[in-house]
Amino acid sequence: MVIPSLIQHKRDGQALRPSEWTELIGEYTAGRVPDYQMSALLMAVVWRGLSPEELAALTDAMLASGDRLRFDGFDRPRADKHSTGGIGDKVSLLLAPMVASCGVAVPMMSGRGLGHTGGTLDKLESIPGFRTALTLQEAKAQVERIGCAMLGQTPEIAPADKRLYALRDVTGTVESIPLIAASIMSKKLAEGLNGLVLDVKTGSGAFLPEQSQALELARTMIGLGHARGCPTVALLTAMDRPLGRSCGNALEVEESIDGLRGAGPADLMEVTYALGVEMLLLVGASPSAAEARRRLEATITSGKALETMALLIDAQGGNPRVLDDPGLLPQAEEVEFFRAPRDGVVSRIEPRRIGRGIQELGGGRRAIEDQIDPSVGFVIPARPGDRVKAGEPLASVFARNREGIETGFQALREAIVIGDEGLLTPLITHRITASGVESLG
Amino acid sequence: MVIPSLIQHKRDGQALRPSEWTELIGEYTAGRVPDYQMSALLMAVVWRGLSPEELAALTDAMLASGDRLRFDGFDRPRADKHSTGGIGDKVSLLLAPMVASCGVAVPMMSGRGLGHTGGTLDKLESIPGFRTALTLQEAKAQVERIGCAMLGQTPEIAPADKRLYALRDVTGTVESIPLIAASIMSKKLAEGLNGLVLDVKTGSGAFLPEQSQALELARTMIGLGHARGCPTVALLTAMDRPLGRSCGNALEVEESIDGLRGAGPADLMEVTYALGVEMLLLVGASPSAAEARRRLEATITSGKALETMALLIDAQGGNPRVLDDPGLLPQAEEVEFFRAPRDGVVSRIEPRRIGRGIQELGGGRRAIEDQIDPSVGFVIPARPGDRVKAGEPLASVFARNREGIETGFQALREAIVIGDEGLLTPLITHRITASGVESLG
Repeated sequence: MVIPSLIQHKRDGQALRPSEWTELIGEYTAGRVPDYQMSALLMAVVWRGLSPEELAALTDAMLASGDRLRFDGFDRPRADKHSTGGIGDKVSLLLAPMVASCGVAVPMMSGRGLGHTGGTLDKLESIPGFRTALTLQEAKAQVERIGCAMLGQTPEIAPADKRLYALRDVTGTVESIPLIAASIMSKKLAEGLNGLVLDVKTGSGAFLPEQSQALELARTMIGLGHARGCPTVALLTAMDRPLGRSCGNALEVEESIDGLRGAGPADLMEVTYALGVEMLLLVGASPSAAEARRRLEATITSGKALETMALLIDAQGGNPRVLDDPGLLPQAEEVEFFRAPRDGVVSRIEPRRIGRGIQELGGGRRAIEDQIDPSVGFVIPARPGDRVKAGEPLASVFARNREGIETGFQALREAIVIGDEGLLTPLITHRITASGVESLG
Repeated sequence: MVIPSLIQHKRDGQALRPSEWTELIGEYTAGRVPDYQMSALLMAVVWRGLSPEELAALTDAMLASGDRLRFDGFDRPRADKHSTGGIGDKVSLLLAPMVASCGVAVPMMSGRGLGHTGGTLDKLESIPGFRTALTLQEAKAQVERIGCAMLGQTPEIAPADKRLYALRDVTGTVESIPLIAASIMSKKLAEGLNGLVLDVKTGSGAFLPEQSQALELARTMIGLGHARGCPTVALLTAMDRPLGRSCGNALEVEESIDGLRGAGPADLMEVTYALGVEMLLLVGASPSAAEARRRLEATITSGKALETMALLIDAQGGNPRVLDDPGLLPQAEEVEFFRAPRDGVVSRIEPRRIGRGIQELGGGRRAIEDQIDPSVGFVIPARPGDRVKAGEPLASVFARNREGIETGFQALREAIVIGDEGLLTPLITHRITASGVESLG
């Protein structure tokens, strides 16, 4: 296999043969293709894209580079959710126990935060003792016993993706729809699912801010999932403001607990229910969206979802008493209100600036090996469209010290724009299935 | 300096600041930027191009990464020629002694053959004992003594280019006009020249077959040269057929000797004179093209160019007796005529197929470390437009053994197309100077 000519073909806009992708990924994973050739090829893919056949071959090769969760003889249907990432997005922490409480197993592999968005693993690890580094055996046994597990990508899952992702991260080749789709789907397809729901964020705080890009990513992943026996559906949800009120690891766990107790903010619960409904429908666990919604709501009112969360935390080494006493979560030293600088209407709450603010407070990573402080962050009850008075509290800053409070204030001063008018854009705008796009606006 | 964001900027079509290029090349040469980041950036440059300011900064940084030839106190003007490479192109072997015989010094650094084109160093090394690995000191002393030196790129010259070129070669990032221009000019500017002539090949056997690309490369290099105090002129010459009759290392040396003795093929001499005239004009050594041409012709008729070549070969460890007895050059074991398969007109002699044929015979490289057999190749007196009879000799194959003869025949069967009509396209089509393009068609 002559790598330079493969790179030249892709550079010149030609498609590589599926067998070439298969061999290339195999050789790369085995360490026989150097990173400097792979990164040049990845840039050519960012430039030229991939044909559907190439994308399928790449995804399959990445999936085949490792092992997968095997649920032979386990009769419960399995579903999962993947989000493209946003600020304040703690949906997974609610969804896994809620859906599991409806009898649909959730073997959920998540990632860490990097850049301006948070990561489910970091949030979970703010629960004292919580262990996300499960082995495939542990995860399988736990899913079969209590219906859900929340873990990190194990070394056996899609090792090609792991190497490729690390390389893309340092070579400016992250922003490519086919590469993103292949990366996500190679891991999700390894979970042994019967259905997958995608939460594709749009708006200024999303990884792909443009709606057209979000739709293309959704369609690409749905196509991959369907062709591989994993029915996939996507919702496009707003990320032009944070989701929910809390932004920061422990603060988001606390808000998730509120949600499991029936006291979650409306937007967070709405997205959670909408995604949960799709999961139940996809695996045939509910006959209708209305029935699915009722069952999911019942997991909250009955306390069943909270019980499942307690089992999950306990199974993964964490202290389930946090569910009764959120004070057991890491607490920030300093907390202070941020007040409206003038009368007016909240016209924007910029998620990227909030995310960067969390990083600046020590709660996010610049590099993957960075340690994070789980206690810091923001609680922002204000929403675009709210009419406010000068001096009225709009948000709280949670910081390590006084300096952090100032840092947080600066972030909020830049993120929260008070003007003469403002509008809360629709939360869930599109539903994309294998048969097409449905506008919910 | 955050490399991934530089890569992202270039990927997104933005220009990097000159200081960023300077620092990047410095850090890369010092080994502090990994190849996998540089190759991704190079692919982004292939995609997005470079602004004139970026190109200037990159070229200067590559030049500044090493040393240069310094001719302080040496009063003779210095000029050189660079060719973008073709089949049968042995012009340098004539031009250096001819121009030096006119009192213009020629400190000529050349390359090796790679892919389908030959390299001047390989040709020279077919002369028994000839040494191309001169040090900068040796080259300088020799130029000052006899007026010319023909050497390889020394380790001190543009080491950044050396590393970048090796990386581009294996990452599909060779074919970029700004990268080609920066690579060539960073080396040529290190020669301490007063003038540079470019022989930019066009047609199917050229590195950049399209005339528009050849013109763009010429203009780009001329701009770089002028802005750096090295007046530069380019001629566009035909490479839709081999130049001269001989193709292969020792065979081309032999044809060069014929040329120095006044018996060179017309097309080879025409290109050589045209380039030589430009060299004399550029450094002000001749008042007019006609005068320059007369002086160059006189170096042949007087035997002066042959004498200078003898001095050059002797100075570089070779046996100057080859000039009187070309039988001292490596000789092929087997030689055989290739005959016209039918009556008709030669419609094409495809240079790439000839170049590949030399490789197949063992006379060219697939990888830079390959050993080559200098004795093999082709002599092809036929020209497009020639009317031929079936069975008439069109060419000779020079090979190691009978198998090689068959290999050579196969190459010629594919390269030489006999049809009902054929046309010899003009040899020198354009002259490009800093003030514009002059069509010579």
